[in-house]
Amino acid sequence: MTALVSDIGGTNTRLGLVEDGQLVASSLDSFANDDFDSYEAVVETYLDRLGQRRLDACCIALAAAPTPDGAQLTNRDWTIARTGLQALTGAPFIGFLNDFEALGYSLIAPERLETQPVLASAMPPPLRATRMVLGAGTGFNAAACHWPASGGAPHVAAAECGHTTLAIEGEEECALQAALAAGRGRASVERALSGNGLREIYAFVCGRAGRPCRAQTSAEIAAAAVAGSDEQAVAAAHLFLRLLGRVAGDLALTLLPHGGIYLYGGVCRALAPLIVTTDTFRDAFRAKGRMGPFMADFDAHLLLDDRIALIGCVEWLRIAAVSRACPR
Amino acid sequence: MTALVSDIGGTNTRLGLVEDGQLVASSLDSFANDDFDSYEAVVETYLDRLGQRRLDACCIALAAAPTPDGAQLTNRDWTIARTGLQALTGAPFIGFLNDFEALGYSLIAPERLETQPVLASAMPPPLRATRMVLGAGTGFNAAACHWPASGGAPHVAAAECGHTTLAIEGEEECALQAALAAGRGRASVERALSGNGLREIYAFVCGRAGRPCRAQTSAEIAAAAVAGSDEQAVAAAHLFLRLLGRVAGDLALTLLPHGGIYLYGGVCRALAPLIVTTDTFRDAFRAKGRMGPFMADFDAHLLLDDRIALIGCVEWLRIAAVSRACPR
Repeated sequence: MTALVSDIGGTNTRLGLVEDGQLVASSLDSFANDDFDSYEAVVETYLDRLGQRRLDACCIALAAAPTPDGAQLTNRDWTIARTGLQALTGAPFIGFLNDFEALGYSLIAPERLETQPVLASAMPPPLRATRMVLGAGTGFNAAACHWPASGGAPHVAAAECGHTTLAIEGEEECALQAALAAGRGRASVERALSGNGLREIYAFVCGRAGRPCRAQTSAEIAAAAVAGSDEQAVAAAHLFLRLLGRVAGDLALTLLPHGGIYLYGGVCRALAPLIVTTDTFRDAFRAKGRMGPFMADFDAHLLLDDRIALIGCVEWLRIAAVSRACPR
Repeated sequence: MTALVSDIGGTNTRLGLVEDGQLVASSLDSFANDDFDSYEAVVETYLDRLGQRRLDACCIALAAAPTPDGAQLTNRDWTIARTGLQALTGAPFIGFLNDFEALGYSLIAPERLETQPVLASAMPPPLRATRMVLGAGTGFNAAACHWPASGGAPHVAAAECGHTTLAIEGEEECALQAALAAGRGRASVERALSGNGLREIYAFVCGRAGRPCRAQTSAEIAAAAVAGSDEQAVAAAHLFLRLLGRVAGDLALTLLPHGGIYLYGGVCRALAPLIVTTDTFRDAFRAKGRMGPFMADFDAHLLLDDRIALIGCVEWLRIAAVSRACPR
């Protein structure tokens, strides 16, 4: 059986072929979305390049909420119709996954992923225990990978965590919430825990310090914070990590990922040195009152793998093939 | 096959027998915990009364985190050992469930439960869609009942939501958070959304109004709020429902219970008239910015059934029997 797996990002679309349940490394390729006017055109170019005509199945991960008929990209005017993709590839079996759903499926076998430890617990994670991925990048979201108590294949539970209400504590954060909510009526988690969020937190910190904002992009702010070259960038990064640790801790108490927590996304990766070498994230994660010792039993890792969404699609196809789940 | 199901509450222990997968109505009984010095003594009295000697299985729901060997009650010095219960009942198969885990399993067939609609969505809930229970009573917690995408038996994901950080918005709630956190360092969801929480919110409201606290217990405060006989009780109840709606909305965005949300617990039941007849809970639940229309698609119901934890134990036994899961 030959299947296509694909990860449609904001800028690039990554594709790969799956033979006998394994991702074929030599088939991995990436295309700039701006060079194409439809997703089908990307797939056609990719398959032509490989001389691959017919497929048995496709699994596509994308930053959107798929419907039974296909998906409409949120950040680009691409509409992907299941029927059109079936006509193009001949694949009778096509699956669409939300991007974090795909990340969740990749956690079925995290030992295959490139990771870096962030929080270490005293005990090794139990078998078949829930794993959680959360990510801060363009936006914020999370997903949980559960192993049903009755046995059977893992189940990934999707979420829309970025839209939950940002939990703040104390005077400074009340002022931050007011700044983030200005003109919007509220401050969601994503409003703070994203690239734009880091920029707004930096502007808030600079404003309170009466200093000009020297860094412009979230990448510049993160770099200046890691380098320690900009006092306000350092303060903004630590405020960001305090909020990230608190939100991660709340998600851990809600999803109980005793199998491990995996951090994903551009902002998490950019701030990784501060997550690992300072106590800010860890202390905020564990600051749950008498549950502190309970929180100390969670492992956390940073996901460094760029193929992770594709690997999640491979896992989803394997489960779908085994269970003959209906196309979705 | 004859099984015992049991729900150990803070005051009473409810028990029932299961024959051929059905709860036997005539076998339902309840005992005051104070009349016994151990859970085994309750079971012995119950089985003697029924003239039932041998059991094939037991499932016990209790407000505690069970271990493989048994469970230690949090609110009373009862330790329940799997081995002791096996010796007493002859049951080779014994399961311990956290109380909200049991509530989660009862949602496999909510049409069998006594409920009252709270929020109605335009669309009927899809089949095999996640259901969620959340409850405010002595404490606060939630659980999700998932139907694995690959098919198979439902999976209930337990949680420790009561310990998450209370998400507050605006000046008044910042002051409330400071009051709730006084002497404790932080304010958890449970600190506000529980019987004691309603009392503390009422004291906060009375303090700001410069009025004495006339109602004493959370039941008195809820009754006065529903009757409209105490202005501060009404204000406290609406503040409580605003926080409950927000937390319920955040849990809905995290667990995506498109199959329905079920409210449980003494405080939810006591404030039910205000949940149903005023907009406070609904508006707070849906106040998620551009996700407002998304939030309007969730159904919510109030759980009125006292047998719900027992019914959850019956469902768990059915799944465990089908899947031959290891005793837990």
